[in-house]
Amino acid sequence: MALEKFLQAIQEESSRTIYGEKPEELYEPIRYLMSLGGKKMRPLLTVMATSIFSEDWEKAVRPALGVEVFHNFTLMHDDIMDAAPLRRGKATVHEKWNQNIAILSGDVMLVCAYELLTHVEDGIFKQVIKRFNRTAAEVCEGQQFDMNFASMMEVKEDDYINMIRLKTSVLLGFALELGGMIGQAQEESIQLLYNIGVNVGIGFQLKDDILDVYGDPEKFGKQVGGDIIENKKTWLLIRALELAKQQGQVDSLEKWLNVKEFDKNEKVQAVRHIYDSLGIREQAEAKMNEYFDKGLADLEKLDAPLSRKKPLITLINQLIERES
Amino acid sequence: MALEKFLQAIQEESSRTIYGEKPEELYEPIRYLMSLGGKKMRPLLTVMATSIFSEDWEKAVRPALGVEVFHNFTLMHDDIMDAAPLRRGKATVHEKWNQNIAILSGDVMLVCAYELLTHVEDGIFKQVIKRFNRTAAEVCEGQQFDMNFASMMEVKEDDYINMIRLKTSVLLGFALELGGMIGQAQEESIQLLYNIGVNVGIGFQLKDDILDVYGDPEKFGKQVGGDIIENKKTWLLIRALELAKQQGQVDSLEKWLNVKEFDKNEKVQAVRHIYDSLGIREQAEAKMNEYFDKGLADLEKLDAPLSRKKPLITLINQLIERES
Repeated sequence: MALEKFLQAIQEESSRTIYGEKPEELYEPIRYLMSLGGKKMRPLLTVMATSIFSEDWEKAVRPALGVEVFHNFTLMHDDIMDAAPLRRGKATVHEKWNQNIAILSGDVMLVCAYELLTHVEDGIFKQVIKRFNRTAAEVCEGQQFDMNFASMMEVKEDDYINMIRLKTSVLLGFALELGGMIGQAQEESIQLLYNIGVNVGIGFQLKDDILDVYGDPEKFGKQVGGDIIENKKTWLLIRALELAKQQGQVDSLEKWLNVKEFDKNEKVQAVRHIYDSLGIREQAEAKMNEYFDKGLADLEKLDAPLSRKKPLITLINQLIERES
Repeated sequence: MALEKFLQAIQEESSRTIYGEKPEELYEPIRYLMSLGGKKMRPLLTVMATSIFSEDWEKAVRPALGVEVFHNFTLMHDDIMDAAPLRRGKATVHEKWNQNIAILSGDVMLVCAYELLTHVEDGIFKQVIKRFNRTAAEVCEGQQFDMNFASMMEVKEDDYINMIRLKTSVLLGFALELGGMIGQAQEESIQLLYNIGVNVGIGFQLKDDILDVYGDPEKFGKQVGGDIIENKKTWLLIRALELAKQQGQVDSLEKWLNVKEFDKNEKVQAVRHIYDSLGIREQAEAKMNEYFDKGLADLEKLDAPLSRKKPLITLINQLIERES
């Protein structure tokens, strides 16, 4: 199966790659974080996009790894900012080493991402870097908006969608457009690939928000209700607050947002109950499907034989149907 | 005078440059740090190197600003790691805003540096980025070595020189080689420019160490003796420990390193007295001149008319003679 072949090539490239040697405090955290696994979704998107337009998809593997390294750089720094103790079930870098090492090791990781991206043909290199610069800056912007939202009383639905677009989706867009550029696709197709990534990415993040509340505890992997416990401003909460206000019944929801001491299960159940009474799940799923559908429609429009697009269609459908 | 003309062009470019708009928390710290001044030594080196080989030095100004932005990114992150309250006499970014903002704003600043570097001709772009990647990684390595040294009992002289080479000098080397590349210099000249930057950079840092102990308080700008008060492992301290050990009289120096409560002036005077008795100042100056001389000799070798090299010779001589 194509997907597994691509994944294997990415994993082999990843284990072969030497980020640097000394000082060890700088490079060991990179190896550590990169070895914790993850779905390798972003480099898969790149390699798949290349394979749509070129037999020689292998030339995409090394630059694709650059996208994964960039993603892990953002995780290393975000985990400091969020004071997160765990990443993929293991100690975060700033916990295992210390904060200064997590800052500096992250910095060099961003440089490593740029270095991996140099492994594209000269003819497309500047375009790749310019588009990557735009994406990298937007990902930082998204993270800053996310931090700002945490201390804001009210966040608008559109601002939330824009935040997840920046923080999560544009990198999926870049992963696909990078693959298109490497595969020497037409500019129109490259644009389409970018849009597919962005829309699927927004759907992907909305799915995350939904699973956190309505996921099957046996399959979800994380604690269901984590966002509710932390009052995280997800699309569901933002929408629920909006609707409850319109209907003049925001008090019970705000009570749960303001309560300082509570039984976690009780809070999760109560907020979920409020969501249910407002029909939030259905609305969130409709919103999510809107973005997934946009992505799939653009994928259909993409000027390439269906057989070539198959692996990407399969991957996106897996993202749509995932339960964890 | 050429130097002032270059500096003015750099400052105009700097005030024209828009790093980004929103969220403000991300971009305001960049504008703040960039506006605190500084000698703009690195972009000056770039523009001067270009002007040696090309009439059209103006094309170097925008990428040269990328080197300055990169330098300021390292300051923003180093200041977090060093918990420094002040930078150029003003509050550091993590003090004025907060630490998370300093991390993320620094990250986007690194991206901005790459973006400014895209403003070179296509023919040299990949070479520029590859050399910049190497430099940027080395600067991070130097900072990590510097942090490691702080908690080490003994640091070797060569390891110290290597640390300052990485942390400070390679960026001066890159600034000059970038200028050479933009000016379409021969590869041999580009290499020579790099070596000039590295050697002058090491001399520059040794000068820093010397001025901290022997600077004229009226001209130095900072508190003279700051490194002594903090037991900073400068070349002078490393050398003094080595010599004192050889001569079996390390006790009085180690006493001052281990004392927890002390009068600052008394400690500075006492340690300076030990340095004097070991002839540390002369040895440090000899070492510094060794590197400056290497740099100046390579500058003489550089295949270009003396009149073209004049501004760079002037700038380097200013660095050699500086008292602050």
